[in-house]
Amino acid sequence: MADQILEQGTCYDNLRVLCKEVGHRLSGSPQAEKAVQWGVKALKAAGADTVWLQEVKVPHWVRGPISASFTSGAEQFTLQPLALGNSEGTNGQTIEAGVVEVSTWDEIKQLGAQGLLKDKIVFINHRFNQKNINTFFSYGDCAGYRVRGAIDVSRYGAKAMLLRSVSTKNDEHAHTGMMMYNDSLAKIPAIALSLKDADLLSQRLKLRMPLKMKLKADCKMLPDAVSYNVVGEIRGSEKPEEILTVGGHLDSWDVGEGAHDDGAGCVQSIEVLHTFKAMNLQPKRTIRAVLFMNEENGARGGRKYAELAKTNNEKHLAAMESDAGGFSPRGVGLEMSEAQKTSVRKWRHLLLPYGVYDFELEEGGVDISFLRKEMNTPLLGLLPDSQRYFDVHHSANDVFEAVNERELKLGALTMTAMMYLLSEHGL
Amino acid sequence: MADQILEQGTCYDNLRVLCKEVGHRLSGSPQAEKAVQWGVKALKAAGADTVWLQEVKVPHWVRGPISASFTSGAEQFTLQPLALGNSEGTNGQTIEAGVVEVSTWDEIKQLGAQGLLKDKIVFINHRFNQKNINTFFSYGDCAGYRVRGAIDVSRYGAKAMLLRSVSTKNDEHAHTGMMMYNDSLAKIPAIALSLKDADLLSQRLKLRMPLKMKLKADCKMLPDAVSYNVVGEIRGSEKPEEILTVGGHLDSWDVGEGAHDDGAGCVQSIEVLHTFKAMNLQPKRTIRAVLFMNEENGARGGRKYAELAKTNNEKHLAAMESDAGGFSPRGVGLEMSEAQKTSVRKWRHLLLPYGVYDFELEEGGVDISFLRKEMNTPLLGLLPDSQRYFDVHHSANDVFEAVNERELKLGALTMTAMMYLLSEHGL
Repeated sequence: MADQILEQGTCYDNLRVLCKEVGHRLSGSPQAEKAVQWGVKALKAAGADTVWLQEVKVPHWVRGPISASFTSGAEQFTLQPLALGNSEGTNGQTIEAGVVEVSTWDEIKQLGAQGLLKDKIVFINHRFNQKNINTFFSYGDCAGYRVRGAIDVSRYGAKAMLLRSVSTKNDEHAHTGMMMYNDSLAKIPAIALSLKDADLLSQRLKLRMPLKMKLKADCKMLPDAVSYNVVGEIRGSEKPEEILTVGGHLDSWDVGEGAHDDGAGCVQSIEVLHTFKAMNLQPKRTIRAVLFMNEENGARGGRKYAELAKTNNEKHLAAMESDAGGFSPRGVGLEMSEAQKTSVRKWRHLLLPYGVYDFELEEGGVDISFLRKEMNTPLLGLLPDSQRYFDVHHSANDVFEAVNERELKLGALTMTAMMYLLSEHGL
Repeated sequence: MADQILEQGTCYDNLRVLCKEVGHRLSGSPQAEKAVQWGVKALKAAGADTVWLQEVKVPHWVRGPISASFTSGAEQFTLQPLALGNSEGTNGQTIEAGVVEVSTWDEIKQLGAQGLLKDKIVFINHRFNQKNINTFFSYGDCAGYRVRGAIDVSRYGAKAMLLRSVSTKNDEHAHTGMMMYNDSLAKIPAIALSLKDADLLSQRLKLRMPLKMKLKADCKMLPDAVSYNVVGEIRGSEKPEEILTVGGHLDSWDVGEGAHDDGAGCVQSIEVLHTFKAMNLQPKRTIRAVLFMNEENGARGGRKYAELAKTNNEKHLAAMESDAGGFSPRGVGLEMSEAQKTSVRKWRHLLLPYGVYDFELEEGGVDISFLRKEMNTPLLGLLPDSQRYFDVHHSANDVFEAVNERELKLGALTMTAMMYLLSEHGL
């Protein structure tokens, strides 16, 4: 199985096509539509017995031109901002306001209560905690500011929210990602700055000279669009009614190429089917590769998949997702009962020779989480090395060239091995 | 210790200076001399109690212009060759000859015995075995052809040797590396081709049309030059006479920037001292960071260090090297007695939270191997993830940008942790 994937695997070539011929593919965009067609073709080429689409309504957010500049004393600076996903724009107006920097929820609360955020552009300069070995722990902390920061500062009358990008890389690329509004508060623009821009702005604010910013953004939310999950399966030979799902999400943010997030998870899931076919292995249980739509700004695809599974009274034995990048795998997260964890951990020694040793974390994946909510399905999550993920995540850095072929393939191998073991032995 | 290195560590900034201000630094070159000065400065800045140089005579090989092109039928193709290190050139002449492709030692023997390699350019197209999970196992196999291929084909009268680069990356960059001659045989030029060029040549040879190659190379070996190992130490508070060595090699090949190979090992070793100083930790035993000269084409620095250690009757408790790239660490190789391995493995649980789990391989490092030969010193080798190393190794791809800051720092952390444990508890 390792030899097949490392020597004959097609996931890297598939990823090249997805990244270079389709490109980034935000839900509702023409590229997302093209990606659906690509997915159907790739699953058929992998040898799936059946390939079908699941229709799903998705949010349709579009990014327009954006500009941000500020004067500090006599000097003028131009930033390279990037609107957060789902953000409203400035309605054709230019916002002109002073900037207040904060770095924690407490600080927002304190300054807000004193009226100091009113009519200001609030700059949330919360730093990524480099101390965690698993960078997802630091991400969780920062992502809260990204998702809910605009709500919180809008509560105190802020005109816009600027966010230090949730990123480990000190460069000029801003990182986008989902944000949310509270319908009872003003929907102010929410915009990410690269670490370089954030540091520049912070330095200039420290000078305590008059600082005035101009901000204009044309992003907006359109009515929901129709899109699809793409599903391909190999029917089980002994217990076809028992379904194993392996997946990634097909949509991506509208910058870069969505290579690690989550082209990797898609092509790895397709590789699972391809490997069974290429090796002429007939799984005992049914294995489905699912390319979920809209993980990034709504998770509508994941919801739909679980909803249909429930409606159709399907029996889902387990589901596994790869949505943490196409890096060298180190483990498999387990979100299931303790008894089920014990069963899976018995296979640990089979994975160790491939560098996959960590079966301790409670991790599944966003798209498959709805299967657990609806049907208590046991979940597995691929755990790649996390050091580089937030260098590229949701930014122009997330391109095909940032993916290493062998690392991607070892992730696919880990998923295939887990699917094989589950299809042979159940759970 | 982890917090200090991940947040305040200087190894990544040091690496930037080494790569961008010094650049590549082959033994005997002006850049190697500059690197020695850089090393002294960096070790002093890290807070070493003492910094000194160890003079060492090194081979002085220089690369000149090179060209290779061939005609196949009516078509002409230009290659982008790269001489292997230590190779002789074509003495101002242009070699014109037919090309014979071989891929194994057996094939060389068979064709050679039939006289079919005589007066030919022999193209050794031995492929990197992608099946091994640890890429160093495949490297070992391929490197044999690089090191001894010219000897073997010269024995059968070949005019030159072309080698498929020892590489995992299918691109246009050739990978150099050390080769050797046998003084009793003609010293023919030995030249690497990128995987793209190797595949092109192989395809054209398969057409069985007349194929003629022109080859010219001006590389040559000059008389030995004077250079230096750079050593910095923190003297132990309780057992200063017991020495722990931690090192990497300062020289690199003369392409790229020697970032992973082995700028990483140098800056990580310097980080060990920096961390002790920054945290105000006084090691019980003496810790020496050593930047070895000439690992790539002679290992004279490693030999000299061990020779001086023996002459001076030093007591070397253990030595650790980082020379497998600045990637996310996965383990520590142990080249020592079984009893010593058992002692080191008792610390395994301390390293596991940092993703360092593999203490099984018998691995030290080239430079420190002489300490073991001369004085039976126990050796440790940092084992980073090996998936990407041979994409960059000895090629133009090995630049600062290919190194991830967090991965590099986690390697430095692993080395610092091992040095701390050894300095506290001995071995």
